[in-house]
Amino acid sequence: MTPRRIQRPPWIGRPGDLPSVVALGGGHGLAATLSAVRRITPDITAVATVADNGGSSGRLRDELGVLPPGDLRMALAALCGDDEWGRTWADVLQHRFSSGGDLHNHAVGNLLIVALWELLDDHVNGLDLVGQLLGAQGRVLPMSSVPLDIEALVRREIDGEEEVGRVRGQVEVASTDAEVIAVRLDPPDPPACPEAVDAIRSADWVIVGPGSWFTSVIPNLLVPEIFDALHDTAARRIVVLNLAAQPGETEGFAPETHLEVLTAHAPDLQIDTVVADAATVEDPSGLTKAAASLGAELVIAEVGVADGSPRHDPLRLAAVLEEVIG
Amino acid sequence: MTPRRIQRPPWIGRPGDLPSVVALGGGHGLAATLSAVRRITPDITAVATVADNGGSSGRLRDELGVLPPGDLRMALAALCGDDEWGRTWADVLQHRFSSGGDLHNHAVGNLLIVALWELLDDHVNGLDLVGQLLGAQGRVLPMSSVPLDIEALVRREIDGEEEVGRVRGQVEVASTDAEVIAVRLDPPDPPACPEAVDAIRSADWVIVGPGSWFTSVIPNLLVPEIFDALHDTAARRIVVLNLAAQPGETEGFAPETHLEVLTAHAPDLQIDTVVADAATVEDPSGLTKAAASLGAELVIAEVGVADGSPRHDPLRLAAVLEEVIG
Repeated sequence: MTPRRIQRPPWIGRPGDLPSVVALGGGHGLAATLSAVRRITPDITAVATVADNGGSSGRLRDELGVLPPGDLRMALAALCGDDEWGRTWADVLQHRFSSGGDLHNHAVGNLLIVALWELLDDHVNGLDLVGQLLGAQGRVLPMSSVPLDIEALVRREIDGEEEVGRVRGQVEVASTDAEVIAVRLDPPDPPACPEAVDAIRSADWVIVGPGSWFTSVIPNLLVPEIFDALHDTAARRIVVLNLAAQPGETEGFAPETHLEVLTAHAPDLQIDTVVADAATVEDPSGLTKAAASLGAELVIAEVGVADGSPRHDPLRLAAVLEEVIG
Repeated sequence: MTPRRIQRPPWIGRPGDLPSVVALGGGHGLAATLSAVRRITPDITAVATVADNGGSSGRLRDELGVLPPGDLRMALAALCGDDEWGRTWADVLQHRFSSGGDLHNHAVGNLLIVALWELLDDHVNGLDLVGQLLGAQGRVLPMSSVPLDIEALVRREIDGEEEVGRVRGQVEVASTDAEVIAVRLDPPDPPACPEAVDAIRSADWVIVGPGSWFTSVIPNLLVPEIFDALHDTAARRIVVLNLAAQPGETEGFAPETHLEVLTAHAPDLQIDTVVADAATVEDPSGLTKAAASLGAELVIAEVGVADGSPRHDPLRLAAVLEEVIG
């Protein structure tokens, strides 16, 4: 294998300037957006949630006091160089140990990212170095430089009585059997990653979602400097809705409910385009109304994978985003 | 930082063919040899012991059933590319987590090497990929493709009576308070790494030592195919003696004792040159006699670090080896 030989990317040779795109979110949703956007432009910045408290990330956070690296790792893997070298190292990052012992389920990329943070004492330098290793198209940044917790206001009915309570932790909120009304961050005013703020302010396009709505997507909007940058930027703003309600945090949500709770958490945020999957919108009237009330264009298109499972198809999503971005 | 830009190595522009060198051993001793040899030639193959049962390596071996990677990791780091990229990734490999938890004391490079083995299902491919990552000068190979254990025959005096017994495990042998008489491998006839055998057979020079004598250096000679290759090769053979007896396994050993136990474990192995440190040879008569009995040239030179601690100085050792290799 020849290391780091980057094959001609698909955007080389296209006329005109290429747009700069910032994608905000976390987990598989952010990775899906990145897998699509990398087909349109090399100028990509991913901004990922750092509120995970479960799995390998949660254990690293507990044991070493570091940012949970998992969402950042997945985003980096999604941007890996389009050659054997890049894909091999992406596979290494994503590899998980399987044993009856201490390392079980740790993702190798999480361990590597955390080691770089300890060694370089700088989140952005560490992530950039992993990006260089992968020959990544673009950059991956944490939304904040401190680990965060998500706290949700939830409602449940007990013996016919409605009870409102709080659930704390990304895992706990994502899997609650109660109805999530709203989320907030702890600490509520975390420092944003300055490079993420700069990227949003100077972007041509910002994409929010898809992803776990309350625990991966909305948290980005709750970091004050990120929200301010999203508000002030001249970039056009796209919201990509989820393909399905998630058991737990968004159980029973219609597409327009996703949009409503998003804007409730980010008041006065202007949205230019809302992308929804055709298969998930049975009756478009509610979503059309919700988008119109925000002054946003609504694009309904087939963006899910062909087998019907609730995952975005990178090529289909890329085709739609390219049409929007132009 | 510009990735993988290899600076002009010191041997470029030298006239003539460059020698191929195979260095056998383990731990800090092998790393010291490699740090010296890399100043002479780019054509380096390191063959490392895989019998470690302690520390991070021992835990990985127990938990995942893999070869202990530690000696291989140290050798790779010693051969890292001579630029910021190579040195940074060498630092990453050598970085150890420090915590009160599960990851404490694990070396990042051990985790990475093991992950590559799991992913690629091939020891040599995995090590070569780490070598490519580092821009390494040369190649690092395991002496065997199976994890090994060292078993020592030891002698101790109890109440004036001499007792002979066995001690099992690299850590246990290295730290025994008894006198080590001989070591053997378990299994006694492990499969050699074929690439290591080929490298020895086609080398111009083979260097054995320095290093933990019974637990890092001699074990290489006990792998039957490695011994046969060492016996058959047209390469000239250099033994680099340790700078000091090690408490535990070689307590009280004179330089010539090292040579005697080495040849006792590798009968009929011809040695061309023995390198000993001037400061450790007070009376050269015993060593001169031992070397002469093997038909080997004895080179006594200052090869230790200037502060007198028992470590080889890479530049001093390189100067001596270059004179020998010519």
